[in-house]
Amino acid sequence: MTSPESAETPTAGRSSQTATLAEIAREAGVSAPTVSKVLNGRADVAPKTRTRVEELLRTHGYRRRRAEASRSPLIDLVFHELESAWAMEVIRGVENVARDAGLSVVLSESAGRLTPGRTWADQVAARRPHGVILVLSGLDESQRALLTSRSIPFVVMDPAGDPGADVPSIGATNWQGGLAATRHLVELGHRRIGAISGPSRMMCSRARLDGYRAALETAGLPVDPALIMGGDFHHEAGYRIGLELLGRQDRPTAVFAGNDLQALGLYEAARELGLRIPDDLSVVGFDDLPIARWVGPPLTTVRQPLTEMAEAAARLVLDLGREQETPVAKRVELATSLVVRSSTAAPAGR
Amino acid sequence: MTSPESAETPTAGRSSQTATLAEIAREAGVSAPTVSKVLNGRADVAPKTRTRVEELLRTHGYRRRRAEASRSPLIDLVFHELESAWAMEVIRGVENVARDAGLSVVLSESAGRLTPGRTWADQVAARRPHGVILVLSGLDESQRALLTSRSIPFVVMDPAGDPGADVPSIGATNWQGGLAATRHLVELGHRRIGAISGPSRMMCSRARLDGYRAALETAGLPVDPALIMGGDFHHEAGYRIGLELLGRQDRPTAVFAGNDLQALGLYEAARELGLRIPDDLSVVGFDDLPIARWVGPPLTTVRQPLTEMAEAAARLVLDLGREQETPVAKRVELATSLVVRSSTAAPAGR
Repeated sequence: MTSPESAETPTAGRSSQTATLAEIAREAGVSAPTVSKVLNGRADVAPKTRTRVEELLRTHGYRRRRAEASRSPLIDLVFHELESAWAMEVIRGVENVARDAGLSVVLSESAGRLTPGRTWADQVAARRPHGVILVLSGLDESQRALLTSRSIPFVVMDPAGDPGADVPSIGATNWQGGLAATRHLVELGHRRIGAISGPSRMMCSRARLDGYRAALETAGLPVDPALIMGGDFHHEAGYRIGLELLGRQDRPTAVFAGNDLQALGLYEAARELGLRIPDDLSVVGFDDLPIARWVGPPLTTVRQPLTEMAEAAARLVLDLGREQETPVAKRVELATSLVVRSSTAAPAGR
Repeated sequence: MTSPESAETPTAGRSSQTATLAEIAREAGVSAPTVSKVLNGRADVAPKTRTRVEELLRTHGYRRRRAEASRSPLIDLVFHELESAWAMEVIRGVENVARDAGLSVVLSESAGRLTPGRTWADQVAARRPHGVILVLSGLDESQRALLTSRSIPFVVMDPAGDPGADVPSIGATNWQGGLAATRHLVELGHRRIGAISGPSRMMCSRARLDGYRAALETAGLPVDPALIMGGDFHHEAGYRIGLELLGRQDRPTAVFAGNDLQALGLYEAARELGLRIPDDLSVVGFDDLPIARWVGPPLTTVRQPLTEMAEAAARLVLDLGREQETPVAKRVELATSLVVRSSTAAPAGR
């Protein structure tokens, strides 16, 4: 009897393939069907055997052949956390591309850890999706090896950390967005401009803040560290930092928030302190979620094309899965753009 | 050689089983493995044969045995549309239960149609999830038969139409919510109270509006059809209807909106017309999305426990899949509750 897996062996030996499945089996001291079971994420393999086989797959850089034929009609989409309102924009983009390709989307959450758990990687290996899209979430070395050995392509969207030079990724021009937001405030005449940043471990937060600094410096304005405060990307952080920044004697006349949710928290803090937007305080957000248009006053913000980014990530991961094609670009940053609404104005007394 | 499917045949003949797989094969004039292929959603069956087998499966009420063992670690979650902000709350609830059960969530969108497409049902049959949760989305007769024959349980959340007496469903007490919202406005002294309702084909819209009418009638107030206008559940509808309702000479002093997004549209219309909330206009929403707390003024709304409802739906569908257990209740409505914030006050001049 010929198992589907052993049929893959003869195609091995191409330049990128360092060992065949049979060779790995021999080296591990197990049968080829056992290696096949590990590749398929089957549960009936002793943990020790499994670990040994996985190690050999990794060290030999084994890459499964004929992955295309055996794939399930699925794309995996992994979020760092589903709390954020912008997750919906991303889901929609991936769903658009998946639907056109006749695929369904499998959603998971790495629940606060920045790399998804080991169990997740096993499940992905077992279900063999067309690809994996990671949102603000990275993979550790062994998870990458696991996906690579199964020929499951992956793309990181809006990388939280430095994803590594060879990791395909889709981002937005965060630095440019921070620059445009702050320049807009400078041009309105603001001199004391505060900034609320996101978590410093996320590259996107750092880039936005660096853009803010660059705008001040090129305008010949001092960067006052007392006016820069950081927190997570939630509403609560904007509110808490807002109360502190705006409660001071020498409060800023404008604030560049790290994202729209923080900006809305800042709105709440301003309301509580009796400050009117934009008369007493100008606010710029980042993301341009649907709610940015709906709040009062409608929020001036940096538009990040989240749905388009998600669509680009989904298309890239599908391209990577078609082995005969080479994707045009494996690292892409889509442009951000400033959307001026009613939360920004010249400072009072000007 | 014994195929996994033919091993199921001997267990047939129990009370709920009207025909075995072998009998269906005989009647269809095909082999048992062919029926098995149809059950597994395999593509290599002639469309005509497939249709004939599906018909026989349905008329005989065939129900697959041993479904539990062959399931994939997945739950299917189907939305009518992913546009709405509250989809996120639902996803989070299903994700919570799925994660605890070691399952992943497959997301699909029926894209405007109220029953998911045929292709979707085939894909579900092929991937064999633990269960299917449909949100504001129903199944037609053949789709139900298809899932039933594969022993894939399903639950409808917040039924859009009447899902049928035997369909397990999780909802919220929409009528009670409409009643509480409108009573609150009556008690504040409002007499001209408008209502924006959702699509009339959705039972939840009808129930909310009936609760509104009941509150007016029990308070001895007339129900003025001119003050009731309907649209879809989006921001845009609230804005458009708001401009019309509030632009009139005899405009209402308060409006009960069909959901929070409509309420935010109404906020925008009021801002445009120079009406202050709550001084000139009181507004009550429905859902209690996170944004209801963040808008200015924070929105008085009827809280619908969306995440808890989604958790209940996910638990119910998993219970239904454990054949030995009988779920406590197959139709549940969770309680709504009025959350009073700052968008409601006594009418001016009182």
